[in-house]
Amino acid sequence: MNFQEYLEARRADIETALASVLPPSPDCPPVVGDAMRYSLTAGGKRLRPVLCLASADAVGGDRALAMPAACALELIHTYSLIHDDLPAMDNDTMRRGRPTLHVVAGEGMAILAGDGLLTEAFALMARAPASPDPSIQGRKLRVIGIIATAAGATGMVGGQALDLVGAAGADDLRSMHGKKTGALIRAAATAGAVMGGADDATLALIDAAATDFGLAFQIVDDILDVEGEPAAIGKTAGKDAAAGKPTYPAVYGLDGARRLAGECLERAEAHLREARLGDSHVMAIGRWIVTRSH
Amino acid sequence: MNFQEYLEARRADIETALASVLPPSPDCPPVVGDAMRYSLTAGGKRLRPVLCLASADAVGGDRALAMPAACALELIHTYSLIHDDLPAMDNDTMRRGRPTLHVVAGEGMAILAGDGLLTEAFALMARAPASPDPSIQGRKLRVIGIIATAAGATGMVGGQALDLVGAAGADDLRSMHGKKTGALIRAAATAGAVMGGADDATLALIDAAATDFGLAFQIVDDILDVEGEPAAIGKTAGKDAAAGKPTYPAVYGLDGARRLAGECLERAEAHLREARLGDSHVMAIGRWIVTRSH
Repeated sequence: MNFQEYLEARRADIETALASVLPPSPDCPPVVGDAMRYSLTAGGKRLRPVLCLASADAVGGDRALAMPAACALELIHTYSLIHDDLPAMDNDTMRRGRPTLHVVAGEGMAILAGDGLLTEAFALMARAPASPDPSIQGRKLRVIGIIATAAGATGMVGGQALDLVGAAGADDLRSMHGKKTGALIRAAATAGAVMGGADDATLALIDAAATDFGLAFQIVDDILDVEGEPAAIGKTAGKDAAAGKPTYPAVYGLDGARRLAGECLERAEAHLREARLGDSHVMAIGRWIVTRSH
Repeated sequence: MNFQEYLEARRADIETALASVLPPSPDCPPVVGDAMRYSLTAGGKRLRPVLCLASADAVGGDRALAMPAACALELIHTYSLIHDDLPAMDNDTMRRGRPTLHVVAGEGMAILAGDGLLTEAFALMARAPASPDPSIQGRKLRVIGIIATAAGATGMVGGQALDLVGAAGADDLRSMHGKKTGALIRAAATAGAVMGGADDATLALIDAAATDFGLAFQIVDDILDVEGEPAAIGKTAGKDAAAGKPTYPAVYGLDGARRLAGECLERAEAHLREARLGDSHVMAIGRWIVTRSH
């Protein structure tokens, strides 16, 4: 199966799984359940769950064991977008080609829907995969810890806090994005590898590669923010630059930023080759991150 | 040890444990770490963690095993207060006798600090108590599931959503509070019992008693909102009534509300007596909930 076929197949699996994660339930007030589903079903690249599944595959694991963590990563990513878009944060009105949640449901309900998605991510990982096998239970606890740490104040939430107060130079920029975007991408790759039963050496190499994926992802995001069409990227183009936020093209120039992204990909490939995963779909995800047009 | 001594001893344990949960760390930007600590160290009754520890004790378990869950419950309770107090929600400016977090740190940082506390709750429960024992790992996963479900859209977040859109009559009032306040109080009692190794029959009886504790807690909260001094309750008195929110005294009258709270306590005691826990500190916590003055 070539990568494009693999990507489409995994995305289809993920959409099916996500649709069953938040069913309408008599216990869940529709007003908040509908808000959660509005944002979760708005599409998006599903990069984090695909990376999680590909990582489990690459280490020879059972991909199905990684699906709950894959869905949890997308719930967490979606919550982070909802909260980032709030008027008190980035004040964005369009996301994934649709009005942002606070525009359609109000600020209070958007905050709550984000809270609900974040919380459901952990409920999901605690209950699934349902297995009495102690080794699977151990993997689940480890993955909950990895994902919670990546999503929390030392990771994504910390990066958003740095973004909010304003990052300054090139070092700050890398540190801020390493937390805000990179931490959850790393967690996606390592969570999949842990659920797939990877040994520690392989896990460390996948983590190193995914760290470069995360950096490359943000650099390309910044390039697309300068070059992209709003219809393709699904949000307001040029917004970061207009807001005076430091971006990689602003700091390094467009060519310099493209070269940086290419170097990330080379480093990641060296790590994955060392883990004998140079031909895996994980590596192909790295190439996709750098060559994507939205 | 009488209950007052027990309560003070457990609160001291909890304050010590909470102080070590969020240490300043080079990985955590101080701007968000300080905001999280501002709210977490503002005091409060620590009802949920005390109930969690007392429940573990009551079933003959090792209280230390329940401490991470106890701290996680307080992190989650604190996050919920921060988000509830936001201008887009209840718009409260005082809490636990201090200005609310968004007043001192801004709305965006208050949202992020809440997100960070919620996320750290799950990171904490995943890593502690650190034990390779499969039965302890199984209990930890079960407790993460219990607490996440109680805190999420079918529980606390759902209750807050109902509160935001406006509950109407007496039935709505009970359903809304059962989720908003009751779910996490129930989870505190059951999480402690699970970590303490309770059998399923005992667990069900503790859960039933804690359901009545949660209802009693809210009724008494409403009574104190009418009768209490702002200095004692640490927030603006009469605010709910002034906002036209339905309260138990408004629906049942003050005497009716007091009678309802007493009936909750009687039902809870019957459940706990059936579990041979009628003389436990768990029961004493129920009496404290009903007789407290703040």
